[in-house]
Amino acid sequence: MNEVINAILTRRSYRAFTKEAVKREDVETILDCALHAASGMGKQTWKFTAVINRDKIQRLAKAVAKAIGRDESYNMYDPAVLVITSNEKESKYREVDNACAMENMYLASEALGLGCVWINQLLGCYDDPEVRSLLREFGIPDEHGVYGCAAIGYPAETPKEKARIGQKAIVE
Amino acid sequence: MNEVINAILTRRSYRAFTKEAVKREDVETILDCALHAASGMGKQTWKFTAVINRDKIQRLAKAVAKAIGRDESYNMYDPAVLVITSNEKESKYREVDNACAMENMYLASEALGLGCVWINQLLGCYDDPEVRSLLREFGIPDEHGVYGCAAIGYPAETPKEKARIGQKAIVE
Repeated sequence: MNEVINAILTRRSYRAFTKEAVKREDVETILDCALHAASGMGKQTWKFTAVINRDKIQRLAKAVAKAIGRDESYNMYDPAVLVITSNEKESKYREVDNACAMENMYLASEALGLGCVWINQLLGCYDDPEVRSLLREFGIPDEHGVYGCAAIGYPAETPKEKARIGQKAIVE
Repeated sequence: MNEVINAILTRRSYRAFTKEAVKREDVETILDCALHAASGMGKQTWKFTAVINRDKIQRLAKAVAKAIGRDESYNMYDPAVLVITSNEKESKYREVDNACAMENMYLASEALGLGCVWINQLLGCYDDPEVRSLLREFGIPDEHGVYGCAAIGYPAETPKEKARIGQKAIVE
């Protein structure tokens, strides 16, 4: 089977990672793949920020947990890399654009032997003062909202294949 | 370079197609790729409907043009296939989920030697009576909204590479 089709059909969400660091060149590749996703009217008003420092990721996880009322165990699955996807709050396409970039990062991770999972909790709290303060420290513009984020690392589990329950049809 | 990464980095939007029909098995593959995209909480409340009849696609294009005030030349680039992506109007993840599926369909099209472009006009008029009547004829549930759609066919042009103007950063 074509490798691209195979990657799409075997993509999984990984929720457990090893402690191994991700190679810098692979992080760069994943960011480039995000930047090549479809974007409404080609505007590309997004920013992709890969945090590769585990302590910084955990500081953010703790701030998010506090903001949304999760308990202290919340750790975004303790990944080696967290790619924070942000976009102009005023952009009409902000969430949809970033979703396309997320799908690319899922597939790029698969292709590089890494696992990826969608972290959605920033969406509800990116303007919480403590969260925003960390985002600012990470260089994310204040006028950006944060949408789906990608937690990435070497898989420490083999997720089961998920049943595909969506519908399809062909109209002749 | 890894084929998956290469497909992601060379993906383009195609806006001119030949008259050649797309093989039925390729249409099936593209629909399967859509069904394997990421979906919020794994709910997969979507439906992907591939219209492979050019006349039916053009009937829909005319109804959409009328509903949104476009002139008669509006034809969705006259594709061989239009995949209508729909999802429950009440789904929290409707647009974001369908965007992930759109990115998969872009990449699957590239992998199969086809071209794809995002058609966004249904989003604003899927409940127009004439449009809805056609959607119903195509088997799309009345409780579904229609989000990004994929116009697909054999490319009749080679689109220029688009400058990537988004931002990226690595935080150590």
